[in-house]
Amino acid sequence: MGDLHFSRVAFIGIGLIGSSLAHVLRRDQSAQTIVACARTQATLDTARELGICDETTLDPAVAAKGADLVVIAAPHSAYAALGRAIAPSLEKGAILTDVGSVKGAAVRDLGPIVPPGVHFIPGHPVAGTEHSGPAAGFAEMFQGRWCILTPLPGTDEAALAKLTRLWESAGMKVETMSHEHHDVVLAITSHLPHLIAYTIVGTATDVEETLKAEIIKFSASGFRDFTRIAASDPVMWRDVFLSNREAVLDMLQRFNEDLTALQRAIRWGEGDKLEALFTRTRAIRRSIIEAKQA
Amino acid sequence: MGDLHFSRVAFIGIGLIGSSLAHVLRRDQSAQTIVACARTQATLDTARELGICDETTLDPAVAAKGADLVVIAAPHSAYAALGRAIAPSLEKGAILTDVGSVKGAAVRDLGPIVPPGVHFIPGHPVAGTEHSGPAAGFAEMFQGRWCILTPLPGTDEAALAKLTRLWESAGMKVETMSHEHHDVVLAITSHLPHLIAYTIVGTATDVEETLKAEIIKFSASGFRDFTRIAASDPVMWRDVFLSNREAVLDMLQRFNEDLTALQRAIRWGEGDKLEALFTRTRAIRRSIIEAKQA
Repeated sequence: MGDLHFSRVAFIGIGLIGSSLAHVLRRDQSAQTIVACARTQATLDTARELGICDETTLDPAVAAKGADLVVIAAPHSAYAALGRAIAPSLEKGAILTDVGSVKGAAVRDLGPIVPPGVHFIPGHPVAGTEHSGPAAGFAEMFQGRWCILTPLPGTDEAALAKLTRLWESAGMKVETMSHEHHDVVLAITSHLPHLIAYTIVGTATDVEETLKAEIIKFSASGFRDFTRIAASDPVMWRDVFLSNREAVLDMLQRFNEDLTALQRAIRWGEGDKLEALFTRTRAIRRSIIEAKQA
Repeated sequence: MGDLHFSRVAFIGIGLIGSSLAHVLRRDQSAQTIVACARTQATLDTARELGICDETTLDPAVAAKGADLVVIAAPHSAYAALGRAIAPSLEKGAILTDVGSVKGAAVRDLGPIVPPGVHFIPGHPVAGTEHSGPAAGFAEMFQGRWCILTPLPGTDEAALAKLTRLWESAGMKVETMSHEHHDVVLAITSHLPHLIAYTIVGTATDVEETLKAEIIKFSASGFRDFTRIAASDPVMWRDVFLSNREAVLDMLQRFNEDLTALQRAIRWGEGDKLEALFTRTRAIRRSIIEAKQA
């Protein structure tokens, strides 16, 4: 990674993803100065204690000033205001990227504020854990996972190559696609699964206290696997669903139809339909194992 | 486990659960003779190669003859016929148990055939993997997990104690409850989660081939966790849903209501409702970690 160097990297938001990338930059000495910006002083104090930044500030405009790489790593609902705040600070030649889960929303909220000469390249490192905050981050989190970049037409090739090298230095495989396509694929692979997990954990525990204790006790029989996903950051995920509303509602509609069909098959004792579906889904698992994503 | 001894243990069905228990009996030398009965000779050959049985037979009546412990470890749809087949072979003082996921169905299908003097105690070791067949079994599978026994009123205390010691020898924590209560608790913790996982894996992969390849590629973003559950044995799970129909449909109805409410909140941009649920479900995860079930 000797050829990858930034003079000043500004993290606007320094939670799970931001702090993990800061750990990578530190490990590889890829940034001369790392600046962390957050909404609270407590978060900044934690980031400083972790040794992942040289400067801290509560002001996004101060953080972005003079940076050659600005990384928005905040919930989607903050993007528009953050964009307005940093726009006057963005310098010609700088790369502006983000790590959000909905790329259409990133383009909508940040695209209009980007000054000429600034390279705006939305990004999504598809990695994470159910924990949040700067203390939860670690450099190895990205290892072997995919990072999706959604450059707009006409994006500077050199800037795209440099951002690609950054994520590769974190151990990621980088792929580019349109932001529209990204949002459809992730609605299926990530947003719908999270929505369903949140729902089922809510349904299963919305019972009297005695039963709730038993459900926790016997959770290893299937329920437990959903609780890990449903422990993900509440604000981040609230914003994901609201930001990718159309694609999520479309997938949810299809899920509902399929669930209704299954419900009907159970009610009418149509075992062959159940077995046919379960046989098909078992084969999908094999595909994932073969693709080395298990 | 020196005091736990059976002279002849018959496994009617020797798949994932049956073979794992046979491994335990072998390891602890708790059974003088282990007999395996299956529907196909191929399964029996595998069981014999694994060294987990001394005798094999395709005839359940032959397997059960002279046994002091008979373990039904077959899909629920086979129970009634197996019960009729083994009834004449069951000897006074023998323990008849099963390992199925729906205890009401076990009572309904096996209860009527039990001859006087035979101790029928339905059981459910809440353990497993997404794999199936005798080669998938291993003695450690039960370690630290719960086994639920659902003895009927008037069950012989000595027989119950002996069956309890058997599962404890496999490393399980044993709890008793009524079969009705078991089926409600498991509908929530196990059956509904499996049904939802099967559905979402079906929905997400019922797309054109190009998109399907991308979904498998990016499955680590949430979808992957569902595919493991949805790879569970198709026949066994078909039977679970049909055998615990009422409780499953009841939970499914509640899940549907909650999902519809969430869908509406997304459509109308009610972020506070989403955040409130996601904050509640995150706390549930903490309860599971505290209960050491994570």
